[in-house]
Amino acid sequence: MEKMKAIFHIDEMEKWSLTLINVRNLLRDSEEEVEIEVLANSSAVKGFTPDFELAHVITKQNAKGVKFSACKNALEACDLGKNDILEFVRVVPNSMIELIQKQKEGFAYIRP
Amino acid sequence: MEKMKAIFHIDEMEKWSLTLINVRNLLRDSEEEVEIEVLANSSAVKGFTPDFELAHVITKQNAKGVKFSACKNALEACDLGKNDILEFVRVVPNSMIELIQKQKEGFAYIRP
Amino acid sequence: MEKMKAIFHIDEMEKWSLTLINVRNLLRDSEEEVEIEVLANSSAVKGFTPDFELAHVITKQNAKGVKFSACKNALEACDLGKNDILEFVRVVPNSMIELIQKQKEGFAYIRP
Repeated sequence: MEKMKAIFHIDEMEKWSLTLINVRNLLRDSEEEVEIEVLANSSAVKGFTPDFELAHVITKQNAKGVKFSACKNALEACDLGKNDILEFVRVVPNSMIELIQKQKEGFAYIRP
Repeated sequence: MEKMKAIFHIDEMEKWSLTLINVRNLLRDSEEEVEIEVLANSSAVKGFTPDFELAHVITKQNAKGVKFSACKNALEACDLGKNDILEFVRVVPNSMIELIQKQKEGFAYIRP
Repeated sequence: MEKMKAIFHIDEMEKWSLTLINVRNLLRDSEEEVEIEVLANSSAVKGFTPDFELAHVITKQNAKGVKFSACKNALEACDLGKNDILEFVRVVPNSMIELIQKQKEGFAYIRP
């Protein structure tokens, strides 16, 4: 069977804690490799600034292979530029297109 | 690759603004045609009444090809009939069945 | 066409009422058989204790074939053991893996 792949969708700051706990448990409990992307849009992109209280968790999970993406439209709406966020975060032109494409590629959608 | 298709699921009035921003950006940023359906159930069906403050946005997006659907069960629970809502809104007998069928047809699921 | 299958994801206690209404309507309105799983993680697993005010609804829906699953990690975080919850609830080692696998098996994802 094909590799496990999941895209987590987060659009509220209040959901970062639960989302990162879900990702941590998934990394820990999975016996096979899992491809994981955490996509933030709307106000949740503010979680990618280095002074966010969970930035160290995000950084640690990225070191373990988790991809983090931010919606360009949302960053602009929050007045954040590429230089204001963690350097490993990928900026996607449109988060909806990203969600559609990943699901077409077989990623499971998870909305904590 | 097959056309991009997405179904947005909204069940809270508070989510209309974000949902419509997501749809607007998707329409604007996509280079290829996208089939979009916005399905409202629970109390979110009240967003389809003409006096809702974002009704003009819904109407504009519909003119651009976005389909809007309302759950019949939810409309009844809110004491709303076909004549109380925007005329282009399609009433589906059961929103869960709609969500399942669309995902089977390859629609990405997006829950703002 | 393949049988309809859906997995409902709930991670907040406040969502139990809406989730169970969605499931009830789906059971009632579907003309063909539907395979339904309701997966609870995070604090929503507390809905599986027998003293939860909607426990009788959960029990009734289970009798109609709906499967209910609880995340082991979440149960532990809530200090709940297998004996503290309704006996028909299946405990899954990791709810994220369950969500990924079910979507791979063709289950539609629904997040009320």
